[in-house]
Amino acid sequence: MTNTKVVLANRPTGAVEDSNFDLVTEEMAPIKQGEVLIKIEVISLDPAIRGWMNEGTTYIKGIEIGAVMRSFSAGEIIDSQNDAYEVGDYVTGLLGSQTYAISSGEGLKKLDMSSGKLSHHLGVLGMPGMTAYFGLLRRGQPKSGEVIYVSGAAGVVGSTVGQIAKIKGCIVIGSAGTDAKCAYLVNECGFDHAINYKTEDINAKLKEYAPKGVHIFYDNVGGETLDIALMNLAQGARVVICGAISQYNDMANIKGPKNYMKIVTARGVLTGIIVFDFVQEWPMAVEEIAGWIAEDKINVKEHMTEGLENYATTLKMLYSGQNFGKLILIP
Amino acid sequence: MTNTKVVLANRPTGAVEDSNFDLVTEEMAPIKQGEVLIKIEVISLDPAIRGWMNEGTTYIKGIEIGAVMRSFSAGEIIDSQNDAYEVGDYVTGLLGSQTYAISSGEGLKKLDMSSGKLSHHLGVLGMPGMTAYFGLLRRGQPKSGEVIYVSGAAGVVGSTVGQIAKIKGCIVIGSAGTDAKCAYLVNECGFDHAINYKTEDINAKLKEYAPKGVHIFYDNVGGETLDIALMNLAQGARVVICGAISQYNDMANIKGPKNYMKIVTARGVLTGIIVFDFVQEWPMAVEEIAGWIAEDKINVKEHMTEGLENYATTLKMLYSGQNFGKLILIP
Repeated sequence: MTNTKVVLANRPTGAVEDSNFDLVTEEMAPIKQGEVLIKIEVISLDPAIRGWMNEGTTYIKGIEIGAVMRSFSAGEIIDSQNDAYEVGDYVTGLLGSQTYAISSGEGLKKLDMSSGKLSHHLGVLGMPGMTAYFGLLRRGQPKSGEVIYVSGAAGVVGSTVGQIAKIKGCIVIGSAGTDAKCAYLVNECGFDHAINYKTEDINAKLKEYAPKGVHIFYDNVGGETLDIALMNLAQGARVVICGAISQYNDMANIKGPKNYMKIVTARGVLTGIIVFDFVQEWPMAVEEIAGWIAEDKINVKEHMTEGLENYATTLKMLYSGQNFGKLILIP
Repeated sequence: MTNTKVVLANRPTGAVEDSNFDLVTEEMAPIKQGEVLIKIEVISLDPAIRGWMNEGTTYIKGIEIGAVMRSFSAGEIIDSQNDAYEVGDYVTGLLGSQTYAISSGEGLKKLDMSSGKLSHHLGVLGMPGMTAYFGLLRRGQPKSGEVIYVSGAAGVVGSTVGQIAKIKGCIVIGSAGTDAKCAYLVNECGFDHAINYKTEDINAKLKEYAPKGVHIFYDNVGGETLDIALMNLAQGARVVICGAISQYNDMANIKGPKNYMKIVTARGVLTGIIVFDFVQEWPMAVEEIAGWIAEDKINVKEHMTEGLENYATTLKMLYSGQNFGKLILIP
């Protein structure tokens, strides 16, 4: 039996390149006592991967050279030497970008397939959905009637943040990079306003849509977008830093927010979201979001590609904004 | 009777220059019903003045061209047509940089001269002391045993923050720009460690003095200092932005903190202090600080200069770090 996997060949210095990866096929040893064999059906490609490719540690270790590319993946157990898992169980975890994974069960999560299709467990019911849920509700603390601005709004985190904020009674503004994405936000996700940051003046539009300022800014983008949002804070604003995708390809020269003193004059706070801090509460959040999906209060959009040989091409879409919906690779 | 005052002649584009000010002497009209006449004895020169010289509004209006330079000043009432004030009362307020001020009583604060000498009411018992007190205690929320790093530590705000933090049981690190200031912090203010940012490597010293990171960073400086502090945060750190004196001379090109994502990974929060938000509680804080001074728990250092004609020269000392102690101009 053979496994095919994408491994880290070398570390990128700027943007991700095809040459950073190797596709390796190798014989698999049979599973040992306590282990399970998983046939991976869906692989999640998330912005955080670029950070994981750097050496050194942030909140989680960098991927080692030659190791399989880290990713949340999901699939079916096809062999088990572990009493906690049966053949036919569906599971997710940091199973990597490969066709098969062997796991001791540590960090593995059995999926309740009644709460959503398998790929949803990598998106709106997985890490990105949890990031949206806890980042917005625990850090942003939205109150009915408040204005929230979400950058990178067409991504799975951003669109989920905006839709949960609508459920909580907020006025929701999102920015994205194409007219199609903006139309999607307003027409299918129920956002009040969408801004095409490539063709519109974000600052002018924020002043039009939020004349009294933004109470919550949920940032997935960083850079200039963050600076513009800081100029438009309402008194008592919460700035929730989730990501900085505009800066990930050149982490050594990150553009810091020159308007950070606006947080002081707005009597605001800047904080962030590390989704792993809430892992004990994920099941509760999964259940609540699954309920909202069933009630059609949350729209889920996925962007699927196929074939591990397309790993690099697919990953690069994230950083150029070419994907439209949660990016999923089918190995 | 004549009044001599420093007025704003034009707005600086970068650093403050002598030509930004005019010294004007003019006849004074007699005071009207409800007014008091104050002979100003001490004028406070604070970092915030540079911001007030810009057009446009931040948390407080900019000074108008031709208007007296705004400052907290203090002096004695020498004539009164207001029942709330008697000749001989000492008062403070935004009375400007001049020899005499006429006030309707609005914003005027009668001083309890038993709690400290007049100039103290402009420093450790005035706005800077209140900024230290509320910024540290309400925003920083120090706990005994925690490590605090204060930048601009030899200034009145910084030295007061550090000394209150010592009273609260913290380990206190301060940075300043001369060996004499560093010696003062350790020997006279009881700081545990002082770093000369001009001759020492702040990052290396923070790693030595706070190997587990800094729980509270109280920032008066901004720029590179802020970025270095962000690399040294403990989990759950509070970053309290008070000022950014390294950036005030070029507000259009402020260096934003490129390491701001470290606040996220440290599960920290960045917030700020606007001292006017606590004005109702100032009397309580004045009393507590006056008590600490009486018990020799807080050391007060002042740097006095004399003559309104030396206004510009004195103000410039603040931004080059040449003053040593609370800067007070005697008109």
